[in-house]
Amino acid sequence: MRIGHRLVRDDRVTTHAALVARAFGAEKIYMTGIDQSVAKTVYDIGKRWGGEFELEIVEDWKPVAKNWKRSGGTIAHLTMYGVRVDTAMKSLRKKNDVLVVVGSEKVPREAYELADYNISVGNQPHSEIAALAIFLDRIFRGKQIAKEFSGGRLKIVPSEKGKVVQDNT
Amino acid sequence: MRIGHRLVRDDRVTTHAALVARAFGAEKIYMTGIDQSVAKTVYDIGKRWGGEFELEIVEDWKPVAKNWKRSGGTIAHLTMYGVRVDTAMKSLRKKNDVLVVVGSEKVPREAYELADYNISVGNQPHSEIAALAIFLDRIFRGKQIAKEFSGGRLKIVPSEKGKVVQDNT
Repeated sequence: MRIGHRLVRDDRVTTHAALVARAFGAEKIYMTGIDQSVAKTVYDIGKRWGGEFELEIVEDWKPVAKNWKRSGGTIAHLTMYGVRVDTAMKSLRKKNDVLVVVGSEKVPREAYELADYNISVGNQPHSEIAALAIFLDRIFRGKQIAKEFSGGRLKIVPSEKGKVVQDNT
Repeated sequence: MRIGHRLVRDDRVTTHAALVARAFGAEKIYMTGIDQSVAKTVYDIGKRWGGEFELEIVEDWKPVAKNWKRSGGTIAHLTMYGVRVDTAMKSLRKKNDVLVVVGSEKVPREAYELADYNISVGNQPHSEIAALAIFLDRIFRGKQIAKEFSGGRLKIVPSEKGKVVQDNT
């Protein structure tokens, strides 16, 4: 599962999207129009908290998407206008290589056409970050939440009150 | 279900959180430290897309939380350090009045202590927007996605390609 994130100009929203992709089980995110500081934040979090997540800054999302299709992959585009996520899941879960395309408000026509699936997480306006989270949650049937990230320095022990962090240095 | 959102300074992230609360079935959000423009955006979306969602700007989240508890309500605080969301759900779903507290990075000690439940949506750093979305999705067992919002001017018809919007004016 990889994520193509595009057309986002706001750094904090962009960072959230990348961190959700990482925490919810995606392998990699391609991002356009972001600042290097976003990449650094995500890289630093990976070092501290483990896992193998990759972030690649690309000039344009379209070549990524077109190459993806050419090599047999599937493209799912998240949009409030698409078919319901739970309807799409049945066939989508059978695919091996899924590239998820998420963007901010202005999504070009081509995204709808390149996509094998245009998928809505509810048909109300909300947030591409939430849409991505729910989409990945559905794909992985909620199991990504309990996934272990190996190799990190820090690890949280879930706790009723307070903060319990194992430091493995 | 109401949401107490606090300590967020970034308008776009704040707007996303409010819109997720609305789209995912919360009745109301209390927000601190936000700009009036956020309230206006949320209000305008409600007018266009229907529903009864409320937003209230408050000076301080603590009196809201304390009054909530005093009148018998339950407080769930979302934090990456808490117990797993799926563990908490069994007993939390039986509660009637739940106030969800979500914040940005700097969360004061008191939030952990006032909360009846400190709940994590995964123990990796990601996004309070994603955490809120998954929390509400679990509470409502995914049904909020198909919920109809009455009284709006616009309504989307889910579609495989393109944008199909009914305009009821």
